[in-house]
Amino acid sequence: MSALYDQLKPHLDKTYALNVALTMLSFDNSTAAPKEAIEYTSKAIGLLSGEHYNALINEEVKHLLEQLSTEQEQALLSLEEKAIVKNLNKEYKLMAAIPPEEFQAYQILLAKAYPIWEAAKNNNDYDSFSPTLEEIISYSKKFAAYNQKEGQKLYDVPLNDFEEGFNVEILDEFFSKLRTALTPLVHKVNEKSEAIQTDFLHQDYNIDIQRSFCRFLAEYIGFDFNRGVIAESEHPFTTNLHNHDVRITNHFQKNRPDFAIFSVIHEGGHALYEQGVDDAITMTPIGQGTSMGMHESQSRFYENNLGRSLSFWTPIYSRLQEAFPSQLKAVSLKQFYQAVNHAHSSLIRTEADELTYPFHVMIRYEIEKMIFEGTITAAELPAVWNQKYQEYLGVCPSTDTEGILQDMHWAVGSFGYFPSYALGSAIAAQIFHHLKTVMPLERYLEEGNLKPIQTYLNQHIHRFGKAKNTQELLQDMTKEPFNPDYYISYLTDKYTALYHL
Amino acid sequence: MSALYDQLKPHLDKTYALNVALTMLSFDNSTAAPKEAIEYTSKAIGLLSGEHYNALINEEVKHLLEQLSTEQEQALLSLEEKAIVKNLNKEYKLMAAIPPEEFQAYQILLAKAYPIWEAAKNNNDYDSFSPTLEEIISYSKKFAAYNQKEGQKLYDVPLNDFEEGFNVEILDEFFSKLRTALTPLVHKVNEKSEAIQTDFLHQDYNIDIQRSFCRFLAEYIGFDFNRGVIAESEHPFTTNLHNHDVRITNHFQKNRPDFAIFSVIHEGGHALYEQGVDDAITMTPIGQGTSMGMHESQSRFYENNLGRSLSFWTPIYSRLQEAFPSQLKAVSLKQFYQAVNHAHSSLIRTEADELTYPFHVMIRYEIEKMIFEGTITAAELPAVWNQKYQEYLGVCPSTDTEGILQDMHWAVGSFGYFPSYALGSAIAAQIFHHLKTVMPLERYLEEGNLKPIQTYLNQHIHRFGKAKNTQELLQDMTKEPFNPDYYISYLTDKYTALYHL
Repeated sequence: MSALYDQLKPHLDKTYALNVALTMLSFDNSTAAPKEAIEYTSKAIGLLSGEHYNALINEEVKHLLEQLSTEQEQALLSLEEKAIVKNLNKEYKLMAAIPPEEFQAYQILLAKAYPIWEAAKNNNDYDSFSPTLEEIISYSKKFAAYNQKEGQKLYDVPLNDFEEGFNVEILDEFFSKLRTALTPLVHKVNEKSEAIQTDFLHQDYNIDIQRSFCRFLAEYIGFDFNRGVIAESEHPFTTNLHNHDVRITNHFQKNRPDFAIFSVIHEGGHALYEQGVDDAITMTPIGQGTSMGMHESQSRFYENNLGRSLSFWTPIYSRLQEAFPSQLKAVSLKQFYQAVNHAHSSLIRTEADELTYPFHVMIRYEIEKMIFEGTITAAELPAVWNQKYQEYLGVCPSTDTEGILQDMHWAVGSFGYFPSYALGSAIAAQIFHHLKTVMPLERYLEEGNLKPIQTYLNQHIHRFGKAKNTQELLQDMTKEPFNPDYYISYLTDKYTALYHL
Repeated sequence: MSALYDQLKPHLDKTYALNVALTMLSFDNSTAAPKEAIEYTSKAIGLLSGEHYNALINEEVKHLLEQLSTEQEQALLSLEEKAIVKNLNKEYKLMAAIPPEEFQAYQILLAKAYPIWEAAKNNNDYDSFSPTLEEIISYSKKFAAYNQKEGQKLYDVPLNDFEEGFNVEILDEFFSKLRTALTPLVHKVNEKSEAIQTDFLHQDYNIDIQRSFCRFLAEYIGFDFNRGVIAESEHPFTTNLHNHDVRITNHFQKNRPDFAIFSVIHEGGHALYEQGVDDAITMTPIGQGTSMGMHESQSRFYENNLGRSLSFWTPIYSRLQEAFPSQLKAVSLKQFYQAVNHAHSSLIRTEADELTYPFHVMIRYEIEKMIFEGTITAAELPAVWNQKYQEYLGVCPSTDTEGILQDMHWAVGSFGYFPSYALGSAIAAQIFHHLKTVMPLERYLEEGNLKPIQTYLNQHIHRFGKAKNTQELLQDMTKEPFNPDYYISYLTDKYTALYHL
């Protein structure tokens, strides 16, 4: 029992409470708030962000953290408290490097940026968003510079924020490996694109019925509606106040039921992680998923490794057919399975298939690298974007709406996040391989029994929050460190079989 | 220009920002949050309430307010700043009297109480709510006692909070006057209850169509959807973050379309008030409606004086008929008008007609008086409630769901609020009378031209926020003080004509 830790506790609680307020206002802003509200609400958000910052970054907390890091004090802490202090030290150093007035101004900017991006996307008007993005970039680079260590590239800073221990060197190698292995596969699949029929997915699917089927899917994979809700926003996301209030959003399109279906499974994977964090650590600094990469591994594991498998749909495809009889009654389970795995070069990341997906990430990674190297301005981004799509995927956006404006990430200041999607897929494949060695995974899926999968992930990943990092979780569970080879094998095997290559 | 006022400003801004957070979390809790969230979220709400309290109640603010109240400093303030300092002094004194730890514990209690009340109402289980209500009562009385002045009754304190200058003596007289004038009218109307046909209102009305018609009604009376939203909750209410984010909730029942229709007009009246507050004072301590009574006058003016008039429905009744052809095509405008004004003694306040409505308020007023006199416990409330309904209205609830549990007010700690409903109706009648002397009100309604009404109310009431109190607003607009005689004449004339008495 540490008396010093007891002194730290009220600071943590206050920080957490302000975080709940900011998360709630941000969620509301993306899902429910009226159009003209944000200009006024953003003043309050700016002030609360300042309070949030000051609650953690002050001389008292600094002094307490220093004392709590001594060997003598560490001996008095529980495992959870040790992890909290460690995590806090890291976060403290990142935050303390940023002057409070800059941090606050940045939060106000972000609150305004989202609706500007949303309008620009709706109106295919990149120019109306470009100056705001330039400002966001400028803050992001300035903040990265505050935390840049000797020998680090500037872009290493946000990369390391999202995934401890990763940097430009490692990611350059990771993407190069993927490019070498997958480019020939993509090439072959693009040539046989016509082999799989997908037209039945582009009919008119009633949105109310989509909404209700997606709700069923969330429940089916284990989402607990007593501790979560589904709302709607321009771009699907998951957020949470704590493990008893986890929120998924979805976005419905009449002619793309597969978009909403796989979005809800994807966000559901994120949500299971957050709902699964232990009660003892929720509402503490370690009460969330350990990293963006690990988070994306859970969402992509559910979306792709499970959700796009034949076994997953075996027990429930008839239910989808009943929901949309005129569209699907003549479509067999196998045809549906093939259609939702149909691969071809395309423009929209969130609608991309598993195989071409990492190329979308690679393009964003390369552009972010240029942004942080300072070799490109916001105004120049659309041209570079379009050129890279042409180069890697052989397709070119005809509008910025389906190009540079498609993702919300940069509008909310998330640089260094995109690579985690590819890392997440790679981790997911490693976990998928491991699960097949410890349980009859296929049989569980075919029986519609997803509970043992969720329980296993909860026991080995979810409940720990940030108390273990990605490498520790993987090592303890699979008995080996991160290994991207599983990802390459998984994709190669799946697409070779699917297209009879 | 006051340098002291500039020092006060950051305290006001911080208080306001925390208020935005608390309002948002409270709105979300009633409309969207998952069932099990509140137990955890309430910890954050408690902490934020503590911060909110401390932002206003501290030595620095105390000192600044004292200095700003001197004649010398007052001379340096703008009209708005003077009103803000005056209002703040009042609020400061009320709040400062309450120890912070008690205030915070009370906020946590309230956050938990709402879902407990909601479940108790759904399950007709008063006993599960009674201990919580007893705690809320105990806090409310304790807080009132902290602010009780020499010669004041304890119940005078919350009454005066909601309506400056009102107390038990005035309200006893007000209700006695209403009772004397209206009892014979209620008696006669109850006897002729069969004269008006209402069965067509109790058919099956599709809820999606109700929802869409109610949205039209909100727009029709002038609600600005760019600065507001409509959500759903157990009991309709209006709340706002500022004048650019005003939120109405509604509640739909298949067999009571009139409930949702008049709820949205009622809440819409509240919302027009808040949307109409001047930009210069929104997000300041005087940036909201001046009092509960004046607020209720706006909601009840729109709901009853306008919304239940023949002229209001003249231009739009055909639209309602088109929305519900099978239910209403054979019902004439006059029959509809009569049905929505049908009066008879009943159990549910929010569904009561204009005529018997003040009796529902009178019952709650008398019970609150007993609560504050300490002559009744929470456990004894249902019996007294039922006995008073029998005595005044000749009806007795068969379940607590349609009795003591029907209103959320006590669950959110609002004692002293109910009387404002009756005062609101009386003020509304006075304004209604006045408007007919300054504009062709009937003609505007018949032409579907509601804008001049909203503009007039905005010019004379809405825009001022709390910069003027109820009596000042009435005096400046109608050239006389509050006068309940208009209310009695209005009801007498309307119901005499309606029932051919």
